Amino acid sequence: MLQERTIRIIGIDPGLRRTGWGVVETVGNSLRFVASGTVTSDAKMDLASRLRQLYDGLSAVIHHHLPDEAAVEQTFVNKDAVATLKLGQARGIALLVPALAGLPVAEYAPNAVKKAVIGVGHGEKAQIHMMVKVLMPRATFDGDDAADALAIAICHTHHRQSAQARAAFAGL
Amino acid sequence: MLQERTIRIIGIDPGLRRTGWGVVETVGNSLRFVASGTVTSDAKMDLASRLRQLYDGLSAVIHHHLPDEAAVEQTFVNKDAVATLKLGQARGIALLVPALAGLPVAEYAPNAVKKAVIGVGHGEKAQIHMMVKVLMPRATFDGDDAADALAIAICHTHHRQSAQARAAFAGL
Repeated sequence: MLQERTIRIIGIDPGLRRTGWGVVETVGNSLRFVASGTVTSDAKMDLASRLRQLYDGLSAVIHHHLPDEAAVEQTFVNKDAVATLKLGQARGIALLVPALAGLPVAEYAPNAVKKAVIGVGHGEKAQIHMMVKVLMPRATFDGDDAADALAIAICHTHHRQSAQARAAFAGL
Repeated sequence: MLQERTIRIIGIDPGLRRTGWGVVETVGNSLRFVASGTVTSDAKMDLASRLRQLYDGLSAVIHHHLPDEAAVEQTFVNKDAVATLKLGQARGIALLVPALAGLPVAEYAPNAVKKAVIGVGHGEKAQIHMMVKVLMPRATFDGDDAADALAIAICHTHHRQSAQARAAFAGL
């Protein structure tokens, strides 16, 4: 028998300039929007200060919304090594902050997130946004990064339910 | 007139598996070894937990040795995007921890570090280690990463002295 406990999940879409976050709640198969937003860093500041801004912003979100679990988008490794490095640094903070709060942190590749939300492993940003609104009509988001973060959180609810169902089936 | 205040500097050579650190003190032109070591993460753990291990380790070092300033090696961006990303994530933590402690954080490219320590912008690791020992005979290090971290700290002492000299010359 599956437990019908409310689980609160934060999804994070990391970026040095803008890191999106989205918090959802799931009970059984139902999904509820809690909040979303974007943490930004000031491009005129030095890198260490910018990473601290992301750390402070994400820490405040986690302490305010108190999620039980976190999910972070796996970085798309592209040919622009400088961009990859920047993203890696921001991603380090996005993984660290929930870990410091004692949350388990799952990682999902972009195509897994798309598959969870729109049913296939590819698709436009607009499709993801639309499906986030279909799955959670009350969801609001202040931009692409927050919408993507909500999609990541939704992806995690699917994966954890499958894992629970497998465990229940196996009599665990 | 240059101030003859003792300044304590931590150099950090970031890496996901092993992050080297080295603390030196400088008064005017003199240089003194304080401590060095390596913070490691457990490759069997998930990425978020590993980044937390680096965070916890570096935080403990900074709270114990109370440096005034920090210097972090700039990552060598290579063609292996996955390695670049891993290093970026570790580097994010290496920059964050001193920033959270309120330290100014300088960044130096590997060839600037080599130039500061061995006089030219290229050279073998063994040459760097030898010069660290020549410049600070009491220096001890438990491996390449700690030795490199000491070289980064030495590089920062040179650059900050030049900056101070320029400021004094300009009557600032």
